Amino acid sequence: MRSISDAKRKFSRALYPGRFQPFHLGHLWAVQQILKDSEEIIIMVGSALQSHVLNNPFTAGERVTMIKLALNEAQVDPAKYYIIPVTDLDIHGIWVSHVCSLVPKFDVVYSNEPLTRRLFIEANFNVQSIPYFKRDECSSTEIRERMIRDKNWQSLLPKSVAEYIRQIQGVERLRDLMKTDKAPINK
Amino acid sequence: MRSISDAKRKFSRALYPGRFQPFHLGHLWAVQQILKDSEEIIIMVGSALQSHVLNNPFTAGERVTMIKLALNEAQVDPAKYYIIPVTDLDIHGIWVSHVCSLVPKFDVVYSNEPLTRRLFIEANFNVQSIPYFKRDECSSTEIRERMIRDKNWQSLLPKSVAEYIRQIQGVERLRDLMKTDKAPINK
Amino acid sequence: MRSISDAKRKFSRALYPGRFQPFHLGHLWAVQQILKDSEEIIIMVGSALQSHVLNNPFTAGERVTMIKLALNEAQVDPAKYYIIPVTDLDIHGIWVSHVCSLVPKFDVVYSNEPLTRRLFIEANFNVQSIPYFKRDECSSTEIRERMIRDKNWQSLLPKSVAEYIRQIQGVERLRDLMKTDKAPINK
Amino acid sequence: MRSISDAKRKFSRALYPGRFQPFHLGHLWAVQQILKDSEEIIIMVGSALQSHVLNNPFTAGERVTMIKLALNEAQVDPAKYYIIPVTDLDIHGIWVSHVCSLVPKFDVVYSNEPLTRRLFIEANFNVQSIPYFKRDECSSTEIRERMIRDKNWQSLLPKSVAEYIRQIQGVERLRDLMKTDKAPINK
Amino acid sequence: MRSISDAKRKFSRALYPGRFQPFHLGHLWAVQQILKDSEEIIIMVGSALQSHVLNNPFTAGERVTMIKLALNEAQVDPAKYYIIPVTDLDIHGIWVSHVCSLVPKFDVVYSNEPLTRRLFIEANFNVQSIPYFKRDECSSTEIRERMIRDKNWQSLLPKSVAEYIRQIQGVERLRDLMKTDKAPINK
Amino acid sequence: MRSISDAKRKFSRALYPGRFQPFHLGHLWAVQQILKDSEEIIIMVGSALQSHVLNNPFTAGERVTMIKLALNEAQVDPAKYYIIPVTDLDIHGIWVSHVCSLVPKFDVVYSNEPLTRRLFIEANFNVQSIPYFKRDECSSTEIRERMIRDKNWQSLLPKSVAEYIRQIQGVERLRDLMKTDKAPINK
Repeated sequence: MRSISDAKRKFSRALYPGRFQPFHLGHLWAVQQILKDSEEIIIMVGSALQSHVLNNPFTAGERVTMIKLALNEAQVDPAKYYIIPVTDLDIHGIWVSHVCSLVPKFDVVYSNEPLTRRLFIEANFNVQSIPYFKRDECSSTEIRERMIRDKNWQSLLPKSVAEYIRQIQGVERLRDLMKTDKAPINK
Repeated sequence: MRSISDAKRKFSRALYPGRFQPFHLGHLWAVQQILKDSEEIIIMVGSALQSHVLNNPFTAGERVTMIKLALNEAQVDPAKYYIIPVTDLDIHGIWVSHVCSLVPKFDVVYSNEPLTRRLFIEANFNVQSIPYFKRDECSSTEIRERMIRDKNWQSLLPKSVAEYIRQIQGVERLRDLMKTDKAPINK
Repeated sequence: MRSISDAKRKFSRALYPGRFQPFHLGHLWAVQQILKDSEEIIIMVGSALQSHVLNNPFTAGERVTMIKLALNEAQVDPAKYYIIPVTDLDIHGIWVSHVCSLVPKFDVVYSNEPLTRRLFIEANFNVQSIPYFKRDECSSTEIRERMIRDKNWQSLLPKSVAEYIRQIQGVERLRDLMKTDKAPINK
Repeated sequence: MRSISDAKRKFSRALYPGRFQPFHLGHLWAVQQILKDSEEIIIMVGSALQSHVLNNPFTAGERVTMIKLALNEAQVDPAKYYIIPVTDLDIHGIWVSHVCSLVPKFDVVYSNEPLTRRLFIEANFNVQSIPYFKRDECSSTEIRERMIRDKNWQSLLPKSVAEYIRQIQGVERLRDLMKTDKAPINK
Repeated sequence: MRSISDAKRKFSRALYPGRFQPFHLGHLWAVQQILKDSEEIIIMVGSALQSHVLNNPFTAGERVTMIKLALNEAQVDPAKYYIIPVTDLDIHGIWVSHVCSLVPKFDVVYSNEPLTRRLFIEANFNVQSIPYFKRDECSSTEIRERMIRDKNWQSLLPKSVAEYIRQIQGVERLRDLMKTDKAPINK
Repeated sequence: MRSISDAKRKFSRALYPGRFQPFHLGHLWAVQQILKDSEEIIIMVGSALQSHVLNNPFTAGERVTMIKLALNEAQVDPAKYYIIPVTDLDIHGIWVSHVCSLVPKFDVVYSNEPLTRRLFIEANFNVQSIPYFKRDECSSTEIRERMIRDKNWQSLLPKSVAEYIRQIQGVERLRDLMKTDKAPINK
């Protein structure tokens, strides 16, 4: 199934798990790097049922949309990637098996997240690290912070993703989730 | 179905979600205010399967009992309310739909809780705020604190609710849940 | 808490579990009989998350609405009943405990369903049978059959319930659920 | 976002739910028909956690692989489709909402399955039927039957899908699932 | 860790999964055969949360008790076995992984059940068959049938298990579960 | 069933719930003390599906193995104990009932954990405290701390358990789980 141009690639299919809350330039860069060594990439949208909380504001459907927009904008070949939402299982001992049942077969996993790495290593997978891209800024945590404080977050995202977040009023959602109905404590 | 006396009311059925841990005078007051604008009210006892933890000490059955006692004591017309426990779903993206499948149809939601408000607003519901009643004191958090510290908590509850909590030894339960079996840290 | 007129009643609170798909004249009659011996009744709407299948067509919210309509029409005192949806647990060994955590305390259970009876008896509850009312006709199974075949089903329901089912197009829903997209077998 | 060539299409994104056990020529034909009216299609692999039973033999990962192979073979433009596994919820009343949280926004649903149609119609979606392609033969039920009885099943599948099923020994799996460890009944 | 007398055994630990509804002489015989080839055996009580239905009448706790009684009566060395209840997962694709996380490591699986065999074989386990012991009679299905019809079921069980079932009134439970509250059909 | 030597024991079967992350000398001592008053002990391995997190690093299977090794090493009579993993339910109101369905009948519970004690007391069980053994050191929290900091943790465990943790590379797992992929905060 490998084309000639793929012949030099080391892996036939890579798994790239993440939560992508939201999908930023660092994620895009990682996809592009992984595709240098792998013929195909499965972009696994983790915690798929989580949404509308401060560290997981977007639904899986919204995140799939962001990723597709970003990859289109960057002209990544659509024949080369899968975007697959995977629900949490909260049972670490069987999580790798759960992932494997939901996505096509893969021969390498790219992740820097310690638990993800540990679980795949214990299951005898080839696990690779991802070189960071502007690590301090290109972090979903940093971007959500900036959204709340109205600082420049757009520059850290692909243009089309920033535009989509505006359309779905994502920043308003985040700010609403910051509010509280508790009485001030210093009474 | 609207009677003449209801004709002036703005809504036919209101949803009033809460955890009611426990149901206090502020909650009672809210029910009475909502019934000025609405013919019927659904008092939704949220997190119905949560109990026996510090911030959710009472079971749904106990909370339903408290609410019924409070409304009886305040002579709220029993034809006008529903008390319905709703289990958590922990999937925010479909929580509104879950609630709607479990309670009669409603045309307005009363809530000050930011996530609840946000989710119903995104689902295109009419969401109203509830004016606070003695906000600093009439808070379930404050009342649970007072129970633990043996300060005057009874005055913040309808008499019948305070009496019921005594019957089921609710304060003893809370204090037991405060204990720990960990060794003191300053060893 | 017992009023004088309640003094002769044997039980203070009865549990009456059912699926009520839909709530018919036999159910109504049962509620009325139970209230002769019990001060209060908890009408427990079981399988609360089941809906849109042939033997469970209506949502819990729709069934709560039907019950309220029927009891209003029959002028049952609203101070005397609770209508509480309870989700299935599918773990029979702990189901009684699950029910008990979700509803106010009760001292008798009314049921003819063998599994329900068995589980409450093993948990040492007082379990009573319900005398049948026109058993052959007043059965939810029979009523759903008649709805599908367009035979007279309305006469087996309280008028307000029949009217409500028409409003929510319940018969259309049932008939849609009867359809199939399988090819005919005699090919 | 619509290109000129898309201008004549009626819908911007279609949802096409199915179990695809396995994905056959009828499914492929449906995808091609839907793409005549819709710019993009979401192929939703339902019952994603079901596998290894007679009517659901293949995992979601295996089914995603089959679909990708079939669409590649038929040269369907990879920029035009999403393949998204969706886990069952078994709560019909909120299933549409569950699907919507997991996939990108869509403006039409293609399905012949009565329950699926009913649920989307009640949620006010535009629901279309799919013209059948060789309905008697191109049915997953028929194909699984033929696999078990060793009749010609390959001709009903895209070549690459038939080849993939051979690779993963899918027929052996089905036949193993047919076996029983019960004693013969006519003892 | 192998003692001299174990040196001739082929396996160090065997997994023997079953539902044991109830544990009969055939099961006991299987345990004894397996211990001829294996130093230790894990008796896995499957479907641990199922109980109080016709084909799964006993709770996991009751089944663990039966097994312990039977093995004591047969003087099987208690140092050689584990009795471990395992809850169902209903996700076949990850069930083997689920089992492995809950029991000690094993190097062989004994089962005649086709799905169990298939799943462990796909996960590359060594799977062995169990020679049957009086297959026609020593079947849990047959025994439950005899219990219901009041035929001689005791002879198919270890004495202590038959006695235990009498103590917990197991036959009465089964017969209660046979009853129905449906009207007779021939009306 | 009580032997003569058991005649002086107060209880016939004790429940001893714990998470045993890992099983240490204090747990072993507790088992030995409990067996002075009880003929049999059920060692219940709680939170059975939790693993691979800092405060729950080991799977249930690994913990069952540790316990068996420790009891063998200490020559505790294997006829006297059950080791039974129990999955969490996260519904405190029915947790006692859940435990009871999964383990053999018991007439006393040994626990120092406040919530466990409270729930069994509310369910009318006889609940006993466990005298601590070197409480400051023999604590799973302390042992996990020492593993991470490479301080002497082996002396707090039975030799065979320490050896087993080395075999499964348990310390490496814990240290991996300590890592983070977040950028340092002081940027």
